[in-house]
Amino acid sequence: MSYRAPVSEMMFTLRHVAGLDGAGAVSVEDADAILTEAGRLAGDVLAPLNRVGDRHGATLSNGVVTMAPGFAAAYKTFVAGGWNGLTADPDHGGQGLPQVLDAACTEMWNGANLAFGLCPLLTAGGIEALAAHGSEDLKARYLGKLVSGEWTATMNLTEPQAGSDLAALRTRAEPAGDGSYRIVGSKIYITYGAHDMADNVVHLVLARLKDAPSGTRGISLFLVPKVLPDGSENDLRCSGLEHKLGIHASPTCSMAFGDRGGATGWLVGEENRGLACMFTMMNNARLGVGLQGVGVAEAATQRALAYARERRQGKAAGSAEASPIVAHPDVQRMLLTMKAYTAAARGICYLTAAALDAAEGPEGKAALDRASLLTPVAKAFSTDIANEVASLGVQVHGGMGFVEETGAAQAMRDARILGIYEGTNGIQAIDLTGRKLPLNDGATVRAQIAAMRRVAESLLKAADSDLGHAPARLRAGIEALDQATSHQLASLRSNRPEAALAGATPYLRLFGLAQGAACLAREALASRAALKAGETDPAHAGRIALARFFAENLLPATEGLAQVVIDGGGFLDDAGAVLTG
Amino acid sequence: MSYRAPVSEMMFTLRHVAGLDGAGAVSVEDADAILTEAGRLAGDVLAPLNRVGDRHGATLSNGVVTMAPGFAAAYKTFVAGGWNGLTADPDHGGQGLPQVLDAACTEMWNGANLAFGLCPLLTAGGIEALAAHGSEDLKARYLGKLVSGEWTATMNLTEPQAGSDLAALRTRAEPAGDGSYRIVGSKIYITYGAHDMADNVVHLVLARLKDAPSGTRGISLFLVPKVLPDGSENDLRCSGLEHKLGIHASPTCSMAFGDRGGATGWLVGEENRGLACMFTMMNNARLGVGLQGVGVAEAATQRALAYARERRQGKAAGSAEASPIVAHPDVQRMLLTMKAYTAAARGICYLTAAALDAAEGPEGKAALDRASLLTPVAKAFSTDIANEVASLGVQVHGGMGFVEETGAAQAMRDARILGIYEGTNGIQAIDLTGRKLPLNDGATVRAQIAAMRRVAESLLKAADSDLGHAPARLRAGIEALDQATSHQLASLRSNRPEAALAGATPYLRLFGLAQGAACLAREALASRAALKAGETDPAHAGRIALARFFAENLLPATEGLAQVVIDGGGFLDDAGAVLTG
Repeated sequence: MSYRAPVSEMMFTLRHVAGLDGAGAVSVEDADAILTEAGRLAGDVLAPLNRVGDRHGATLSNGVVTMAPGFAAAYKTFVAGGWNGLTADPDHGGQGLPQVLDAACTEMWNGANLAFGLCPLLTAGGIEALAAHGSEDLKARYLGKLVSGEWTATMNLTEPQAGSDLAALRTRAEPAGDGSYRIVGSKIYITYGAHDMADNVVHLVLARLKDAPSGTRGISLFLVPKVLPDGSENDLRCSGLEHKLGIHASPTCSMAFGDRGGATGWLVGEENRGLACMFTMMNNARLGVGLQGVGVAEAATQRALAYARERRQGKAAGSAEASPIVAHPDVQRMLLTMKAYTAAARGICYLTAAALDAAEGPEGKAALDRASLLTPVAKAFSTDIANEVASLGVQVHGGMGFVEETGAAQAMRDARILGIYEGTNGIQAIDLTGRKLPLNDGATVRAQIAAMRRVAESLLKAADSDLGHAPARLRAGIEALDQATSHQLASLRSNRPEAALAGATPYLRLFGLAQGAACLAREALASRAALKAGETDPAHAGRIALARFFAENLLPATEGLAQVVIDGGGFLDDAGAVLTG
Repeated sequence: MSYRAPVSEMMFTLRHVAGLDGAGAVSVEDADAILTEAGRLAGDVLAPLNRVGDRHGATLSNGVVTMAPGFAAAYKTFVAGGWNGLTADPDHGGQGLPQVLDAACTEMWNGANLAFGLCPLLTAGGIEALAAHGSEDLKARYLGKLVSGEWTATMNLTEPQAGSDLAALRTRAEPAGDGSYRIVGSKIYITYGAHDMADNVVHLVLARLKDAPSGTRGISLFLVPKVLPDGSENDLRCSGLEHKLGIHASPTCSMAFGDRGGATGWLVGEENRGLACMFTMMNNARLGVGLQGVGVAEAATQRALAYARERRQGKAAGSAEASPIVAHPDVQRMLLTMKAYTAAARGICYLTAAALDAAEGPEGKAALDRASLLTPVAKAFSTDIANEVASLGVQVHGGMGFVEETGAAQAMRDARILGIYEGTNGIQAIDLTGRKLPLNDGATVRAQIAAMRRVAESLLKAADSDLGHAPARLRAGIEALDQATSHQLASLRSNRPEAALAGATPYLRLFGLAQGAACLAREALASRAALKAGETDPAHAGRIALARFFAENLLPATEGLAQVVIDGGGFLDDAGAVLTG
């Protein structure tokens, strides 16, 4: 069972959740043509390498990292097709397409092959940082090759003593006197830090200048290429590869900068403002990781569904012979859960991408703030459900799921990184509660809840037997979100703001469930309108049923989550009694 | 970080949840001495082999399966200590100890080394099946060596075309005329089907006699030893080892019986009644798997907690320098969730073991029915939370969790099998709703809920500020369980009983949460009494805080789950629209 991009579902979500129809930046026909072509690349070129990559992994020998067989050729195909620079400025060789289309493509690359998809995701982050903060000279030298994909980029943040805590960084930078800097230090967990798919790797490295202030206000960002402009090798190397649970094909490098005196780099942005530059880059990368979650979840769902339609075990009610297991209620619950979570996460991610697009238009800052609000939800909710969906995928396969041949286990191993990198999901939750809820004194989140309420009202008006309890559940879920939001905002303003952090993770889950249900409800309403207008595509009935399933079976968790957010923080006082040794 | 058996917590649960104090079969002092000694074996001998086993795995070469280095010696130590026959009848060389003590020991072996712990668990099942159904001759020949552990046992159920659906079995048996049978067929997923830790492996094999009725009423159980009584090798072999996600050290064999005409076996129990014999064995094995879940969860929690106390990242509220991450509220939430789920699952499993012990005494059948009711909950809830806890363990480690060196990833890989084997957790849920709720026309489950209510009433009477919202939450959780139970029983009696199966999985989770909360509440009440009596052990405050955390942060899911059980079954009509291709 190989991954096939769900182009028609993606298009439906783009049109009816992400507002593609009204955006005007690209026609529906063009979008469909682009996604169809991307889907072909994902299904025919990237997906077949997914198991190969897992088995072979990337290998390090004599300082050289070699990718699994087929990866370098696939990457060349990817670059030749122009897929790397979809959203980049046409002035730099990009295609200037909207974020929503890129979101759908990112989902595809990663659904087909997560280990592969990481590479262009990192490059996209590098392009953004450089375009926003690089000098004209640096842009002229590096942007074109990064946009085309001829060269790839990395983010060098983590050091052994500094994971999520960037204030603890120790890598040093010194001016060389010629406008360049000498960089010395060690970085770990550098994704695609070295590989054989491109001639040059452009490292974006956080480091400290001498006499820089301590903490995060003393960190600067440097561009440090593997190959220097004169064609010589820079003073940097991959010193090790991690032996990881998943994404084996993606080389996770330890990088040594400056073994021979100092790697040559150039400042990106202002001195000591590196973190701000990196955060621009990370915020969008976070949406990308959310989309990786959607892709992995979609692939796991496709695989489980295909298996459940084939595998015969036991007799379903009313059947005289062994039924395909898809006929058993408990297996249906698993498959519907997988499908519903995947579709909900897709809706949230595409909605976030649409807000980024809208920020470029007349809506401006309000849309950008909406994107900021939604980004941690897109990242953490999508990747949490990706883990759950991948694990359910194993479960649907039964014993076959635990053996590596089916690929179900690989999906679970691969997915596990998604909740960790680009800011752990706990950090996303803290970002949502601590930084995003207070945006515009709460007005951004209130507007988002109001938008959900409008969907719920439409669903209540549409209420018929097809929708079951869905309209009432949606309303209740949004009210739970509203109450929990008020509580979090009040806690932040109180003399004990850490109480809000105690409930940050259940709050984010609650937000994702309500927002996801609203997205599915919009699709159900659109499908309902289409059926009334005489369309006969059976996918419409499927979308209505899926929205109902989500509302009746997954959304009811919201009220308990609101209780936890509001009343669960007692452990701040008690934790010591339990957790001290 | 190596596993240490939490002997004092186990003893507290045995005394205050499983009623060890009142049982009288073994004194508290003796129990403590036994568990302390077992804990030493688990921590000093089994735990150090856990990573070794994962890296090496078991290997098959020329038909011979070799265990990872150290396993054979560790097994000899285990057998020499007399740990294999704890609950077996002293007439067969066992120690006749109560199930509750064996439960604690099973948790330890598996917490230290899941791949190792599986072997004695399988042997225990074999001992039970043979003791209950074997002829005197078979018992005389095999029981002593299985009880001592000199020989090990397997269960041979699964065939490629028959996973959970035993009706589809094809392995054949024919009488040889001398009281023995010739067995021909292939089995898969045979745990410890071949290994080098013991001289003989005693296979219990499900097969069909010629002219047997079709379906599950035509299956018989046979004992088929690797080495025949005359010392010759039987006609059976390991034809392959699975490449698995986890428990690499545990050989998962494909077994070929009768390549050279037929393996020699003997009937266990009556012809065509093999499934009943196997189910006796499986029901207790299911509790064993639940205990494996508790052990893995405990080990993952210990590892995460040790890491969180060491690792410094960021400043907690009020701290001037980098704090150990255990000081951050979101990390505390993860660790408390791990600890609380583990303790709750332990309570449920020990309670189930205590019911098995009580069934041997004056309470008799009522206790046996209680054990039957609790067994699917013990199996599925404990193993579901084991997966969740192991995944949280990875998350607490951040990026370090995704690299294999820490062992956190191994725990997650290992744990994944627990929800699948010995009857998938979906099958446990169906067993609970379809077979166990109707026991005594619902009286068994009603009595269990009444027992939970008595705990809730005691907690309400004890209510003080230390307990926060816990008493109210516990009452609400039990009421949610009660309502969902009534709904399930009514559905089973309706003309559409499959509606009850649609809600079986959320119902089991709901049951586990309410029962788990009641177990923790009993411990909190006992600790509260101890503090009032002047005891100063800080663990008492920890237990009260943990019960509160569970009630305030995990139990609130119950009301949503009850909604799902009661109103979520609409997908039985809709699933086709979503799941057909």
